[in-house]
Amino acid sequence: MATVLDLTHSISEGMPVYPGCVPPTIRQANTVEKAGYAEKFISIYTHTGTHIDAPAHMLADGKTLDQLGVDHFVGIACVIDVSGMHTIEKVFLESQSTSVDACDFVLFHTGWAELWGHQGYFEGFPLLSLEAARWLGGRNLKGVGFDAISLDPVGSTRFQNHLVLFRAGLISIENLTGLEALIGKRFLFSCLPLKLEDADGSPVRAVAVLD
Amino acid sequence: MATVLDLTHSISEGMPVYPGCVPPTIRQANTVEKAGYAEKFISIYTHTGTHIDAPAHMLADGKTLDQLGVDHFVGIACVIDVSGMHTIEKVFLESQSTSVDACDFVLFHTGWAELWGHQGYFEGFPLLSLEAARWLGGRNLKGVGFDAISLDPVGSTRFQNHLVLFRAGLISIENLTGLEALIGKRFLFSCLPLKLEDADGSPVRAVAVLD
Repeated sequence: MATVLDLTHSISEGMPVYPGCVPPTIRQANTVEKAGYAEKFISIYTHTGTHIDAPAHMLADGKTLDQLGVDHFVGIACVIDVSGMHTIEKVFLESQSTSVDACDFVLFHTGWAELWGHQGYFEGFPLLSLEAARWLGGRNLKGVGFDAISLDPVGSTRFQNHLVLFRAGLISIENLTGLEALIGKRFLFSCLPLKLEDADGSPVRAVAVLD
Repeated sequence: MATVLDLTHSISEGMPVYPGCVPPTIRQANTVEKAGYAEKFISIYTHTGTHIDAPAHMLADGKTLDQLGVDHFVGIACVIDVSGMHTIEKVFLESQSTSVDACDFVLFHTGWAELWGHQGYFEGFPLLSLEAARWLGGRNLKGVGFDAISLDPVGSTRFQNHLVLFRAGLISIENLTGLEALIGKRFLFSCLPLKLEDADGSPVRAVAVLD
């Protein structure tokens, strides 16, 4: 039997969002008592919570989610532990190249998931150097994930790391959680988005499937 | 390399929804040209498009999605071809019991996915008899899926099949597509919902993963 690990933060009205953004609203639209069935009505920005960015998030000519095959969102992954680092340097990634080159996705354990819900979540998380981002863009990866709010500093307007990876055709996954249990393991990673037409991103239920 | 097959209808403002329900709105909230990044703002009912129902959809004391472990949404599945049938009878399901008992999910190919976008989609699709629904509820399944709008007739207020399956702890998956390619195959099925707190259902990106 396969084991499925949830790598996703919960979606609620009080959840943390990128500074300046607005959290979702979730309204009870019908109830079993009144209508015989319950349903909710959700309003949410595409880059809320655990989510993926398509290249179209920051490239006017970048691919939208529906221009990527569904197999772009599922693949073999490994977790690289970067907790305690300030900058993730290219030389460090090169030392991990055997793992990286056996994967479709590289997920970085920064440790910042523990700060979810606190102001510290938005500050000081490990970041790829531009050279490191370029090195990742040159591997044969589908995407790169972080258990932090972004691949660039909060407040960035240049989005250097995002742009390098998007230009290389990768997707990025942000606000993952639970990565510490996967350090040193090889597993099937799924970050399947909603099938939104012409979309730049989507909240996802990210999981690891282990044999 | 695993092959991933998409079993999901696209989400758009013009998509079909259950009669009387309202389709989603999808607004461009920011663009690369104006803000340096694109994002959309989506408003959607929880039972829109390809989606799952938790038991809480129709049982006041039924489990919500977040009361089910993430492994409840991933498992081995088979597709049973019921195209051309009016009623799916218990005796027919019993003849398929070897397949059913080797699965976590049973998906029914009614052929109605071809009518998506047409009025005929809401009429005349094959339905489980109450005895057949009870029989499925007595197997060791995580869920039952259909490539049709519902497990009960459109306009039903009794929801007999839904209720039998929810009382047995199953989830249901509706509005699947692409099942014809999977008849006679055994595969990993994923219908992971958004991680919405206290939710009765969620749109999903349903897929089949084949070795």
